[in-house]
Parts: sequence; structure tokens; C-alpha cells
Amino acid sequence: MQAAPTTDWIAADWGTSNLRLWAIGPGGAVFAERSSAEGMGGLAPDQFEPALLRLAEDLLPADRVTPVLICGMAGAKQGWIEAPYAQVPCPPAGGGAPVLAPTEDARLSVRILPGLCQSGPADVMRGEETQIAGFLANEADFDGTLCLPGTHTKWVRVAGGQVLSFRTAMTGEIFALLGQHSVLRHSLSADGEADEEAFDAALATGFAAPAALGMELFSIRPASLLEGLAPAAATARLSGLLIGAELAGAQDFWQNRDVVVVGSPRLTRRYIAAMERLGGTARAAQNPELALSGLKAAQLLPQG
Amino acid sequence: MQAAPTTDWIAADWGTSNLRLWAIGPGGAVFAERSSAEGMGGLAPDQFEPALLRLAEDLLPADRVTPVLICGMAGAKQGWIEAPYAQVPCPPAGGGAPVLAPTEDARLSVRILPGLCQSGPADVMRGEETQIAGFLANEADFDGTLCLPGTHTKWVRVAGGQVLSFRTAMTGEIFALLGQHSVLRHSLSADGEADEEAFDAALATGFAAPAALGMELFSIRPASLLEGLAPAAATARLSGLLIGAELAGAQDFWQNRDVVVVGSPRLTRRYIAAMERLGGTARAAQNPELALSGLKAAQLLPQG
Repeated sequence: MQAAPTTDWIAADWGTSNLRLWAIGPGGAVFAERSSAEGMGGLAPDQFEPALLRLAEDLLPADRVTPVLICGMAGAKQGWIEAPYAQVPCPPAGGGAPVLAPTEDARLSVRILPGLCQSGPADVMRGEETQIAGFLANEADFDGTLCLPGTHTKWVRVAGGQVLSFRTAMTGEIFALLGQHSVLRHSLSADGEADEEAFDAALATGFAAPAALGMELFSIRPASLLEGLAPAAATARLSGLLIGAELAGAQDFWQNRDVVVVGSPRLTRRYIAAMERLGGTARAAQNPELALSGLKAAQLLPQG
Repeated sequence: MQAAPTTDWIAADWGTSNLRLWAIGPGGAVFAERSSAEGMGGLAPDQFEPALLRLAEDLLPADRVTPVLICGMAGAKQGWIEAPYAQVPCPPAGGGAPVLAPTEDARLSVRILPGLCQSGPADVMRGEETQIAGFLANEADFDGTLCLPGTHTKWVRVAGGQVLSFRTAMTGEIFALLGQHSVLRHSLSADGEADEEAFDAALATGFAAPAALGMELFSIRPASLLEGLAPAAATARLSGLLIGAELAGAQDFWQNRDVVVVGSPRLTRRYIAAMERLGGTARAAQNPELALSGLKAAQLLPQG
């Protein structure tokens, strides 16, 4: 650990379940990357500073103050300190001033980036806005849609360096809840949904008739009981129905637009393939570390 | 307990969570009604007979065999003994022969009614078919739709004394899962969804744009965070969105048809009001004990 003296600042993505951070040295080089499972969901406000020190204390020079810039749920009302949402349309970073978090250790100066909010329809994001800023750092003139699939999939219209509007779909969370807790769990496979044919057929059904979603979902159970639907095919069908219905609801975001998908490799492939099956086009973001890029971009902005 | 000698037979509705039974005496009169929480979900096959005896042994005459006729999940593959599904179109009772369950007590002769199944689209029911038979016992010429809301809402086309087709929607189970486990749980009220205005607005939204369901559901959370949406209104919105989307998918079942709703008083009122808001008409079943009526009707059929 000879690295500590070279830390200029620390970038951190502090989500509900995880904390990831990068130590940035001279010239903007990352010389250490760390992560822990001490996400915002398990921490009271006064537990954030100790959790940060547990992960990064050896990276702090003793003789000066190290800036720490954080994005994500650490800025929620139940987090370290609330960083009020900036309202769209606005730039994804810099739409609102970072908020100084209370600290006791004299070596720390911690700021948290605000999330974004929208009214009519009401929506919020925390963390994704920094990934969007990271994407725009490489494609400043992007005019299209970013799709960030996950527990809560974000569909984000971006142009002129600004987030214009966005919507969140609960697809990932509903998939997990139905798979873990509903009557369908008896019919599913725990370890995969690799049946592409079953996925494609269900995708088309979910897209063509989203109103029937609640019935098509139940139908997985009798198809398994009566027709021997295999667990992997059942899981693929569940995924396909939900993503198909989501893509029907999100058509204004992806049809006839430049669409970039930002997510895990598996979900990114799945969403791109789904849009292509339904007549759209989409591509994956080139840079896998968009949160870090966004934090770097935000660090360069004039301090609010 | 002077009743035992008068038992002609016992009718039982044995669901996943509960067992209800009625002792029937001379002239078809019910002289005892019992229930327990020993549902099929918690019983291994050899535990059904002891559970039945715990609830009903004092109702059995000592000197002869008492027939017991059961409907519901006791006839599932994981139940007492599997009573294979009868395939629609068929009468709701009598479409398949009751199955004799294995018993050790010489006073018992137990038969379980089959459920109904459908292929293309695949669907199943167990227990509801007996409620339908009970309804037809009073309205033999009914030509219309029965709606049985609950954890899994059944929409059932009935004419000429037969079940023609049916679909199951997961509305109730999804409502419960989202309310108990999802991010929305922070915004909801545990004890009610009495905000009729919020329900009606969400019903219209869910019905008009079912494709946007996954986004409208998430929107409850930011509406609570940003706009102070009250917990009771949030819960009503969740219910309205889900029922509105369900009614969009079930239009062929309820539009321009005679619709009878069979369920708890609260759900029955809610579904009738919802269909009326959306331009349909519906009425509640007059007889609150449809399972019992259906078991009585099935008991009169020639033994298969």
C-alpha cells in the first residue's frame, strides 16, 4: 500500500446494496478500486463515514484534506445526507449543487451529487444521472435515448447535453418478485433463462398484447402443469412477457431513435436483441465504467 | 353435540390455506359448519385424513359410512390425491368423475371433485368450478361471464350449463407482492385503499394504457416522495392501475355481457364499480355459499 500519498480525490458510487470507489491520482489516473457490501440500505446516517473509512482509510494522505465525490442512494432522504433532486430538463451532472456531507475526520471533505426528478409524470433517479454524465463525456452531442435496465429500468431522453425526460419501469423487480414469491416459482428455473426461442415468442406476445400481461403471466403455471413447459423455457417466457410489455409502454423512447443500452452484459445483450426483434436498433455503451466517468466529469465542474 | 347421528354426508371446500366443511342432514339441511386453517398448502398426502377427522370426527355416525365430497386444492397433484382436470368446454361439475381418496377410517368414504383445465391458452382452476356449479344450480340458463376476483382472478364464460372458456389474471397476487416486498411498500398504507377518487383515476389510466403499467406502478414512489401522495391514495392507485389493466385484458369477457361477480364483499363491490366506471354492467351473485351449493349439486349427480 504505497499508494496513499498519491490520492488527489476519491470517486464513489454508493448504491442501495453496494459501495464502489476509485482513488484518483495525478493526471486523473485511477490507482485503486475498492468495493464493499455496505450499501445505503443497511446504514444509518452516522454509519456512512465509518463505512467509508473502513474501505478507504489507507488511501487518505495524513497531511491534507482529500475530496470525496459520491453519487447514488447515499444522497437519498434515508442516506448520509439528502442531496435534493435537480429537476429535468437539466444536465445530468451539474443540474444541482453537490451537498456537503457531515464528517468528523479532518482528512475528509465529502460531497454528494443530487439525483434527478421529473413531475408530470412523477419520476426520480439517483446514480443513473452520473452514468449518463459519463456517457455524455464521450458523446457530448448525443441525441437519443439511454436505456439502463436493472431492478428499475430507466428510459432517458437525452439531447443537447441535457436530460429531457425519463420514465422508470419496474420490470426487473417484478421479475424477481414473481420468480421468488409467486405461484410461478414452482415452474421456473433458478439458474437461467437461456431458451431464446421461448423468450422471443413471449417477447412478441407481451409487446403485441400488454393488456393481457396478468393473464399471460399466470398461464406459465398451467403450461408447466399441463404441457410440460420446461423450467428454463418458463423463466425465459416470464422474462420475455415482462420485457415485451415494457417495450410496448416505452415505444416513444426507442422507436426511430438512437438507443444506447447501459447495464450488465447479460441485460444489455437481452434488451438490444429484444429491440432488434421488434424492429428497432440499439447499441451498447462502449465505456463500461460510466459512473466513474460521470464522477470525473462532475469533479471538473465549478463547485456549487 | 347431538348432531352426529343425523349426518347424511359432508361437503368440504379444501383450499390452499383453509378447510371449510358442512354437515348435511336429512332433507339436505346444513346442521353444522366448521373451518380450520389446515389448508392443502401445509399438508402431506397422509395428513389429510387426520386433519379431516380433527375437524369433523364428532359429526360421523359410528355405525355406517359417511360420504365426504371435497372440492378445491385437496385434489391437486401435491394434495390428498390427484383428481385429474376435466377439459373445457364441459359442465363445471360432472365434467370428470370424482376421485376416491385413500382412507383408513371405516366411517369415511371420501371423493374429490376434479378441477377444470383449458389448452390454448393453457389455464387451470380448482375449487372455482364448484362455485360455478353452485351458481348454475340457481341460474341454469345463465349465458354470460362469471368473474371470481381474488389472489388469482378467474374470468369464466358460461352458457348452456357449460364452462366454455376461462382465463386467470394474477392481479391479486401481484398487488400483494408489490405491497409487501417492492420499493412501493414504503409509500403504501397497510390498512386501506379507501380513496375512491385515486382509485378511479388510476383505473382509467390502467385501462387506457395497460402497456405503461410497469412505469405507472413505479410512479407511485416518486409521487409519494415528491408530491406527498398519501398512503391511502397510493394504495388505491396501485389497486386501480392493476385492476384497470386487468379489465383492459379481459374486455372480451365483460363488455356487452351479463357479468356476475363472485368474491369477498369488498372485492365484489370494487370489481362491479370498476366495470361500471368503464361502461359495463355487473352484478353480485345472490347466494353467498356457492361452493356449498355446488357440492350439493355434484352430490346429486350419478356417481362416476
